[in-house]
Amino acid sequence: MNKQNVAVIGLGSMGLGIACSALRGGHRVWGAEPNTVQMAKFRSDGGEFEAPIKVADVLDAVVVVVLNAAQTKDVLFGDTGIVPKMRKGAVVVSCATVPPEFAREMAALCTEHGVHYLDAPISGGVQKSMNGRLTIMASGSADAFDAARPVLCAISETLFELGDQVGAGSAMKSVNQMLAGVHIAVMAEAVTFGMTHGVTPDKFIEVISKCAGTSWMLENRAPHIAAGDYNPHSSVNIWPKDLGIVMDIAGSAGFDAPITMAALNQFNTAVDMGLGREDDAAVAKVYAYQTGLTLPGTE
Amino acid sequence: MNKQNVAVIGLGSMGLGIACSALRGGHRVWGAEPNTVQMAKFRSDGGEFEAPIKVADVLDAVVVVVLNAAQTKDVLFGDTGIVPKMRKGAVVVSCATVPPEFAREMAALCTEHGVHYLDAPISGGVQKSMNGRLTIMASGSADAFDAARPVLCAISETLFELGDQVGAGSAMKSVNQMLAGVHIAVMAEAVTFGMTHGVTPDKFIEVISKCAGTSWMLENRAPHIAAGDYNPHSSVNIWPKDLGIVMDIAGSAGFDAPITMAALNQFNTAVDMGLGREDDAAVAKVYAYQTGLTLPGTE
Repeated sequence: MNKQNVAVIGLGSMGLGIACSALRGGHRVWGAEPNTVQMAKFRSDGGEFEAPIKVADVLDAVVVVVLNAAQTKDVLFGDTGIVPKMRKGAVVVSCATVPPEFAREMAALCTEHGVHYLDAPISGGVQKSMNGRLTIMASGSADAFDAARPVLCAISETLFELGDQVGAGSAMKSVNQMLAGVHIAVMAEAVTFGMTHGVTPDKFIEVISKCAGTSWMLENRAPHIAAGDYNPHSSVNIWPKDLGIVMDIAGSAGFDAPITMAALNQFNTAVDMGLGREDDAAVAKVYAYQTGLTLPGTE
Repeated sequence: MNKQNVAVIGLGSMGLGIACSALRGGHRVWGAEPNTVQMAKFRSDGGEFEAPIKVADVLDAVVVVVLNAAQTKDVLFGDTGIVPKMRKGAVVVSCATVPPEFAREMAALCTEHGVHYLDAPISGGVQKSMNGRLTIMASGSADAFDAARPVLCAISETLFELGDQVGAGSAMKSVNQMLAGVHIAVMAEAVTFGMTHGVTPDKFIEVISKCAGTSWMLENRAPHIAAGDYNPHSSVNIWPKDLGIVMDIAGSAGFDAPITMAALNQFNTAVDMGLGREDDAAVAKVYAYQTGLTLPGTE
């Protein structure tokens, strides 16, 4: 497949994985990221040294992997926004979790500059990002897909093509985040509930992962609690943001999401307890604190 | 392994599967069940015709698969309770979802009659029950396990031996039910939320089952919504009961379970809407009704 000139804006753990996967796919990759440690990692893997904005007119694709809608809008159309400098026919691949309506707004603005927009939220976590094996839930015009396909091939294992309507990708992502966030929080609720009746986290994992109560998130996150390891793979701070987006989208459609709301409250409490930068499994500490339980590794 | 004389009390869908699996395992099986259709199925599969109470003194094991704690107590120690008529050294295998404290109470009463008690809640659904492939979360004395092992081999694929303390099996089951119930309800919340933004149930299943938002229950139940098929595999009515037990156990330990509570509220609303006897995926109709959505097959 064609080799492309690609910029990756936002080299957090997911963005760095995407940039390195694109490099391994043979593409030229420019990166932008305030964190100098992440930039050094990127460059040691073969990343270009110029800032993307300086080579904007030779870029085929700009992959945006920032935190939220506000940051996405800023890097695309802010004071040093890149879209006005991109060549016609290039593509923006927007990966942050954002409301569908916001995605449509960004696509319309890109169109004014002759730039394609692919609504392309990602799922899969840091390890899959680093291995070029992400799942991407994408929607946009056939031209946007065509323009982005070479870099998408390098970074993803599964590309869901969700039609030509920008917003469909973001809608599916918000559905996934609703489930993922609730599953993490209820896993924490169940682990700690079990502990009040003598079920250890290790025994919980052994049994429940083989029963109807299991989930992808349970199998992925419960071992962090059993090991007492809260080094962030994905941090608590993600969830007030992502479930907040879900609740905003739901509210605008008059949709009542009480289970999601209950999970969001638990993550908000975790942030209030100062746990925002710990691994999201640390939401278990909310329950442990309220019940007077001692979790493994937190004596 | 030894062939046993077994009674199965309660031939609902799970109990009938257990009885038929025990028959296929070469055991002699007596059954008790008010529903004559279920009794006819049992007898056409080779079940004995006498009532278990009439052969109580030759039984090796009595497997109790009734709805709840009250029914369990009644069949064991009510006016026509079977335990006082059982031979010493026989075993009661108690499969209903009950509070751990209740299981300990039953075990103590059995001990007074020289009968062993295995706290043995089950998981896996009707199909696995019928195929002798249940998961059993069991706790009890070594003698109770020994006495029950031949029939357990015939009915289960996975036997978790959770120690010699009666109550540990029921505690693990309540942890599993907490998760399973919440996962069904939040699946319904997510499917309908997605529909408000153009994500069809079919597309939901295709994408989310491959993403971090998936769960065992989602993969098992979401297809019922996509197909508009609410014939009960497991009914809505199960969940006010089982999540009610979970909340009772939690409350008695001073444990706050807000996500479980939110899910329980949705199942209670489903019952109030007259959906109690439909498949538990019908909890989606609560969301659809509140949002004015039309689910597949419900036009």
